Parts: sequence; C-alpha cells; structure tokens
Amino acid sequence: MEGYIEKITPFIVMDLLAEARQLPDAIHMEVGEPDLPPSHRVQEAYMKAIRDRRFCYTPAKGLPELRERISEYYLDCYNVNVSPERIIITPGTSGAFLVVFALVAHTGKRIVLTDPSYPCYKNFLYFLKSEPLFVPVGPDTSYRIVSEMIPRGQNAGAMVVSSPSNPTGTVYRDKELEALVEYSSRNNLLFISDEIYHGLVYDGRAETALRFSDEVVVINSFSKYFCMPGLRVGWMILPEHLLRTAEIIVQNIFIAANTPAQYAALEAFDRGYLEMVRDTYRERRDYLYDALKDILLIDAHPDGAFYLWAGIGNSSLNSMEFSQRLLREQHVAVTPGVDFGTHNTDDHIRLAYTCSMERLKEGVARIREFLGGL
Amino acid sequence: MEGYIEKITPFIVMDLLAEARQLPDAIHMEVGEPDLPPSHRVQEAYMKAIRDRRFCYTPAKGLPELRERISEYYLDCYNVNVSPERIIITPGTSGAFLVVFALVAHTGKRIVLTDPSYPCYKNFLYFLKSEPLFVPVGPDTSYRIVSEMIPRGQNAGAMVVSSPSNPTGTVYRDKELEALVEYSSRNNLLFISDEIYHGLVYDGRAETALRFSDEVVVINSFSKYFCMPGLRVGWMILPEHLLRTAEIIVQNIFIAANTPAQYAALEAFDRGYLEMVRDTYRERRDYLYDALKDILLIDAHPDGAFYLWAGIGNSSLNSMEFSQRLLREQHVAVTPGVDFGTHNTDDHIRLAYTCSMERLKEGVARIREFLGGL
Repeated sequence: MEGYIEKITPFIVMDLLAEARQLPDAIHMEVGEPDLPPSHRVQEAYMKAIRDRRFCYTPAKGLPELRERISEYYLDCYNVNVSPERIIITPGTSGAFLVVFALVAHTGKRIVLTDPSYPCYKNFLYFLKSEPLFVPVGPDTSYRIVSEMIPRGQNAGAMVVSSPSNPTGTVYRDKELEALVEYSSRNNLLFISDEIYHGLVYDGRAETALRFSDEVVVINSFSKYFCMPGLRVGWMILPEHLLRTAEIIVQNIFIAANTPAQYAALEAFDRGYLEMVRDTYRERRDYLYDALKDILLIDAHPDGAFYLWAGIGNSSLNSMEFSQRLLREQHVAVTPGVDFGTHNTDDHIRLAYTCSMERLKEGVARIREFLGGL
Repeated sequence: MEGYIEKITPFIVMDLLAEARQLPDAIHMEVGEPDLPPSHRVQEAYMKAIRDRRFCYTPAKGLPELRERISEYYLDCYNVNVSPERIIITPGTSGAFLVVFALVAHTGKRIVLTDPSYPCYKNFLYFLKSEPLFVPVGPDTSYRIVSEMIPRGQNAGAMVVSSPSNPTGTVYRDKELEALVEYSSRNNLLFISDEIYHGLVYDGRAETALRFSDEVVVINSFSKYFCMPGLRVGWMILPEHLLRTAEIIVQNIFIAANTPAQYAALEAFDRGYLEMVRDTYRERRDYLYDALKDILLIDAHPDGAFYLWAGIGNSSLNSMEFSQRLLREQHVAVTPGVDFGTHNTDDHIRLAYTCSMERLKEGVARIREFLGGL
C-alpha cells in the first residue's frame, strides 16, 4: 500500500533549476522569490542585531516588538484591529501552514485546496497523513474558487484561499472573498487566507480576510513583498480559540524563528521602499503580459504576485517537454504547470518576472524564437 | 476521546520564566541555551552575508559549502568520513527531529525514548500522531538506556539516544554506544543519535554514533557548543536510503534554513574559540557540582552539556513547588523535573550553568539559604 509519505511530491522545477544553473546565460523565469533585496533600513537593522548579539531564542510566539509592529501594519494598511496576542511569528509561511493544517488534520477533518495551487499545500497535508479535497479551478471563474464548488459531506473542515494566487496571480475581489468567508462561517469551515503576495497587487488591491471576520486564519510573511525570502520569517493571525494550542506546537516543533532576522523585520514596513518594489514588479508585469499575450494563451489575468500563468496548448508539447526544450534550446527556465496540480496544468507553464527588465526582454525574444521553431 | 494534539505539553518552565523575567535580580539557572556569543569570526561572516545580500533561499539541503565544512569537521574531530551528500541542513535540531521522526512514524512504527528526556521528543511524536515507547531510566544505569531495557514486540521502529543528555548531562561511554548501535542494527531499529551537546564534554569525550555504523541518524546543531541558538541552524546525517525522502520533505515543509545564518555557520568551526567555550562551561560545572553535591542529591554525574540534575527528595516539596518557591523566595529560576518526563522526575530539578561564575556563586548562596529555611 502506498503511504502518505510517498505522495509528497518533489518540486519538479528543481531538476530543471539544477540544469539551468549550469548555463551561465540562462534567463531565470522559474524562481519564486524576489530578486530585489530588502531595504537599506532592514539591512542596517539586521547588522545591528548581530552587533547587539541577538543570538538567543526569542519567545515561541516571536519577538513582542515585531508582533506589535505587525499589528500596527494591519491598522495602517487595512484599517483592521488585530491584537498582537493573536499574531504568532513562524519560520516563513511554511511554519504557519504546518501548524494550522495540523490543527485541522488532528480533528480528522480535511482541507479544501484549489487545483492548481501552491504545491506545498497538499504536501503539508500528506506529511500530516491527511488527504486534501481538491477543487479544480479554471478560466471560467478566473481560477478562483466560488462557494458552489466547495464539496459538501466529504468531511471538509477548512479551506485555503490564496489571493493573489500562485501560480496564476489572480486576485479575489472583496465581494468574492467576503462571500467565501461567510460561506465558511455558516458551514463550520476554518477559512485560511494565504496573503503572502499581498502588496504585490497592480490593479486595485487585495483585502485581508480579517476585514470580514476575526475567526479566519491569515498567513503572511516577509518573503515576497518585503523581499526577505531567505530569512524565513512569517506570521499567522489566529482566532482566539486556536491560539494557545498553536503556541504550544510552535514552542515544541520550532522553538522560534531566527532571532536576528526578526530584528531586521522590525524595519520592513517602509512605505517608500515597498512602493518602489511594487512599481518595479508592476512595470515588469505590464511588459511581460503585453509581450506574451498574443503568443501564449494567457487565460488568467495576472493581477498580482509575480507570476504569469500561460497556456501552451498550441505547441503540441506538454508542460515538462515545453519547459525542458525551452531551457535546452533557448536557455530560458520556466516552471512546468504540472508542479501545481493535475487540472489542466499540463498545458500551462508559469513564468516568474523575478529578473530585470533587460533579462525579461531577452527572455521574451528567446521564447518567440522557440515558439517560431516548433 | 483525547486526541494527540492535546497530549502535546507546553514547556512548564515557560510560566516560571515569564515570572522570572519580572525580577531584575533573578538568577537564571533555567535557561537551556548558551550565554556566550558565537566567535567574532562568526559574527563577521554573518554581517558579511548581509552586506553581500544573501537573502535568497538556499537549496533545501542547505548551503553546499556548509555541508562540505560539516563533512570536514567529522573527519577532523571524529576521524569518520561522511559525504556532504548525506548531510542536510535543518532549522535547528527541531527541524531534523520533525523530519526523522516523521520518516519512522509514517511506517506505523514507534520510537523508543528515555524517561526523563528532552520534552520535545515526545511532542514531535504526538504532533505526528505517534505514541512514544518510554523507557524509564534512573541512577542504577547513570540514566543511560541499555539494550535489556528496550521493549520488544511493541512495534518499535527506532530509538533515540542523547549523549551528553538533557536533563542529566550523562555521557554514554564508547562501548555502551556501540552496543546500542549494534542492538539496533540486529533488531531493525533506526538508531537516532542526538549529539547536540557534543563538544560540551568535560571528562573524556563523546563519540559519534557514526563511528559504529553508517546506517544511524545523527542530529546536531550550532545552537549549543557553537553558541548560536537563535540562528536556528542544525543538521542531520542520514543513511543513504532515507536521503531522498528527507530532502523532499525538507523542501516542502521548510524550504530551507535561514540563509545569512548558514553563511555565518561557515566560520563556526573555530577550534580556539570552541576550546574557550568548553573550558568556560567546565569551570562552571566543576564549581556547581562541588558546591551542590552535599546539599542536593545529585544522582547523575554531570559529564557534559550544561545541566545538573539534582534530587530534592529531602525537601518534602515536589519539583514544581520547589521551583516556584525558590523563584519567589530567593529569585533563583530552575526547571522543575516534571518538564522532562514522569519517571522520578517530580523529586528532581534541572539547574543550567548558563550564567556567569559570579551569578552561579550568588545562586548557590541563595539555594543554600532556601534549603536552610525549609
């Protein structure tokens, strides 16, 4: 019998990445992390933490000052009140998903995920010996889940919504998010809002699920918008009734997140710098979308994050063949759609605009040449 | 029915710690992390990593240079050959235990732990919905497990040995360790050697389990001997057949350990500095053991780590009462024995010598006064 651990999938893109690293002129459009560094202020605070010898563990819930700062950010940015008590710092969103998914899985309930979605969601569940409840989403709903799609009577205990989403960049509109939060509340589903790409929104803005209820879970981190992926600092905001159990789990399975990085994160809420970050990615998004929309089948509008989800149905290649040949023939690395699920993913690729405009332009030229040669 | 998640215990000491933090003159003998900073070289490398903008994710298995460096360390320090391929960097030993325990728990097998032992061991297992197999250990075997004690026919799939151990500081002799590794191999138990306190050994030295077999798991970190607890960088050395699965799990549930901290760790193997660290703790161990051995019942010889496991049976107080009153009346914080298990733990406390000689001396004076007043 196949066990859960065998179901945990490797990131398929990793093998491609290893290959791409051998090619000095490769254009990296597969990388899911910002190419911009955090602000100078963050870097200074980081070095100061080291000079100040901040090498001990923080409390399990994280540095109290950082939890205060995040609370202020929710007030400034979203106009919602979140007590610092409800904020727990985690080693990236990874740590937060592991804990929150465990809280659900331990009740015997299952978690609703969209297909496609972030590959690790399902793998956290397999690690916890829980079978995800996949909901296929596609262009008919702009890759968004709507309440009618949520399975009933299959022991669902929670659902995950990511907005802006990975891999499509889709942003849920306020009304849509509100409807899902309300549906979850009526149906005893824990609503888990993955807001890691918040801030990286180019048309309108993304609302936090906390706007609609205090009973939702919000997960976010400093890895994307705040340009600190390798620092492994994220956070989760929990309803009161889950707080103490989550704290005990964090204490035992992580101890705490990296200490100097938490001090550095105190300086992350730097409006001017963050606007520059967003503007940089917006410019790239605009360019890439315009350049590719007539040569690939872009069926999800890239509202946010730093991804473009593009159909390759015209190429007669599947996503792995397409990605491999594009890398070998043109030295452009992209992520095969199959990394993100099984529903119409094999005729898609994900392109990340996490490299400079100059590289993106060169990438587009090479993709054109590749497509012309098929 | 009580679920596994309810079995996960908080660190009991945490409430005491919160209380102790309110007392400006408290003597902290409860803290399980070094009070010495990492070396100047480590601090310089850490700051350089920030100046060099090392903010991206490392590969899931960790920075290749660091894995090389650790491999060299095993050759230098233990004269054993460990391929860097078999070394995976983790977020502290916490990350390593979670992954290794999951590999065992997913087979349906159980893990043998000593009672008393590090409190998180059992809690990782409860998190993974697995019931630990506890083996009570006491002064008759110097708190060491011997093969005759290992339960048979109870679905055991692995055993954990920590040497020097927490909470007792006991070091296993080479022959004892070898016998346990051989027993494990004959009985299809995965031998998991927690070597986090290696280096902090004051009489003789601790041998690595890798000396006796390549099929064991060794877990270690930069948190104790290397004085970098808040950096959350550890490692595990795995047998070949577990490597790929472990890598896939790490990729999905952690992504990687903190990047600048991994660069800092490159400079951690600084023999001169590490000798100073050991000498510092040895001096404190010598002092504290001498000062307390006639007033408390020290039934485990403190060979290593930075702990003293002391019986309080003469006091007529249980470990929690003793710890609470000692804190309130004399402002000395220690850890109640019950944090570490249930077997004769309630008549013990753990004292950590992670504060200066001056503070230790003051602590001893206050403990004397406390005992005199009972």
